[in-house]
Amino acid sequence: MSDGALQNLIRMLSRLPGLGPRSARRVALAMLQKRDSLMRPLGQAILNAADAMQECEICGNLDTSKSCGICSNPERDRSVICVVARVSDLWAIERTGAFKGVYAVLGGTLSALDGIGPDDLGIPKLIARASDEQVKEVILGLNATVDGQTTGHYIAEQLADTGVEISRLAHGLPVGGEMDYLDDGTLTTALRARRAQ
Amino acid sequence: MSDGALQNLIRMLSRLPGLGPRSARRVALAMLQKRDSLMRPLGQAILNAADAMQECEICGNLDTSKSCGICSNPERDRSVICVVARVSDLWAIERTGAFKGVYAVLGGTLSALDGIGPDDLGIPKLIARASDEQVKEVILGLNATVDGQTTGHYIAEQLADTGVEISRLAHGLPVGGEMDYLDDGTLTTALRARRAQ
Repeated sequence: MSDGALQNLIRMLSRLPGLGPRSARRVALAMLQKRDSLMRPLGQAILNAADAMQECEICGNLDTSKSCGICSNPERDRSVICVVARVSDLWAIERTGAFKGVYAVLGGTLSALDGIGPDDLGIPKLIARASDEQVKEVILGLNATVDGQTTGHYIAEQLADTGVEISRLAHGLPVGGEMDYLDDGTLTTALRARRAQ
Repeated sequence: MSDGALQNLIRMLSRLPGLGPRSARRVALAMLQKRDSLMRPLGQAILNAADAMQECEICGNLDTSKSCGICSNPERDRSVICVVARVSDLWAIERTGAFKGVYAVLGGTLSALDGIGPDDLGIPKLIARASDEQVKEVILGLNATVDGQTTGHYIAEQLADTGVEISRLAHGLPVGGEMDYLDDGTLTTALRARRAQ
């Protein structure tokens, strides 16, 4: 059928999220048709990123230095920490441009099933950070799922004694969303949390 | 948000078929979480395959040598050539294990719209190959689409004078397929091409 180098490439590609054996074959063939414009630069970009990227020691964001661009930016407000589960959530908030504080990336959510406890998520470290006098507010930027909300509740409990203000993202209608397509839970929440026009 | 090396990686990934900006970000993050077990081996596998793989001079298959494993296999029947549009079609036929002849990969199908003519697909080369006395049959292993069938008709016309037998893949019910879900065209074809039980 085909050769070891190609089989190896397809096997590796099929381990990426969202790619199965069939799409991995398709990707491999597409790359081979653009060797110089896509395939070699991509291979090099992967190796470069693997060497260059590291976790920020303060917040857990990915960057090329030990202190990420956000934590080392003097214009960011260190008195507000937004807690997120994953780096992708941090990126999502950064894309809005609506947040000027700093982050704490947990790296996941609490899960008894998967044996993920507070220590695995660096929650003690977060509590220590939030206990600094400078910190005024902790925003729980966690998914509106059971795991996300459980993790949020746990963190809020742990922070209760520090006197820091704790908030969570608002729940409600997605902007541009139609009520008719919304689940009952969200609609109930949006109704209860209604605001004066 | 994040750094050049990572942005560059995500931009490259989003150029692969089936990956958009969002899934490219997801793939990049997944890789960074498995640097040694997935990311570096994948980067290396891509560069290795880019260097190692080449087109077979005879049939157009991808392999590590100038004459592919199929063309150089003495047990393959050189008297039957199966014409396919893409290497992925060749792989699909090879996976069945039902074909013992050799191939001709066109690299696409005739398309007036995209300006792809017979010369771009190496059809003259195929005619020359099929004109060899040794060759008895040319199977048109082309998609049952307008482009595929047009290309098949053109090749059949060009081969008319060579005396070589020309066949095409059977059309009909997919094995395991249910009649109720089948389009009328396929069902009509299957009915007309019915065979004695």
